[in-house]
Amino acid sequence: MEDNVVYIGTKPVMNYVLAVVTQFNAGAKEVCIRARGKTIVRAVDTAEITVRQFLTDVDKKEVSISTEAVETDAGPANVSVIQIVLSRK
Amino acid sequence: MEDNVVYIGTKPVMNYVLAVVTQFNAGAKEVCIRARGKTIVRAVDTAEITVRQFLTDVDKKEVSISTEAVETDAGPANVSVIQIVLSRK
Repeated sequence: MEDNVVYIGTKPVMNYVLAVVTQFNAGAKEVCIRARGKTIVRAVDTAEITVRQFLTDVDKKEVSISTEAVETDAGPANVSVIQIVLSRK
Repeated sequence: MEDNVVYIGTKPVMNYVLAVVTQFNAGAKEVCIRARGKTIVRAVDTAEITVRQFLTDVDKKEVSISTEAVETDAGPANVSVIQIVLSRK
């Protein structure tokens, strides 16, 4: 499971959709999409586009949110995290 | 349940945290936080700040994502939606 994680960054959303699709096509049963802070929106877009347009045999299995402590230039801060698990039906 | 919905917009996150806390303090058993598009991040922040800092007897009951069709100046488009249900323990 931990091998099949796609971390969302600041690239265009289709880059991450492609990464998820590639992992499923390589045989993964589940793929986990993770993002924090402002990239959370892109994680949701990635999951929605993947299951609606590319892999209709894949379901959203679980969506969870949490908080992580990070170090910034201005000192410690909390950042929100989202994890979306997609699973082949 | 439908009465206790907080729609996330573009105001500072603490406005929405206050709205959620107010609904719980008025006796709500559950409060639903909804957001779409770029405000999804703020919905996650609202939920996390509420349960971590203000209402420690409230849990994240369910997080779900979906897609809605919207009309824009450039024609129809899809937008991602998040719904976070908070529930008093």
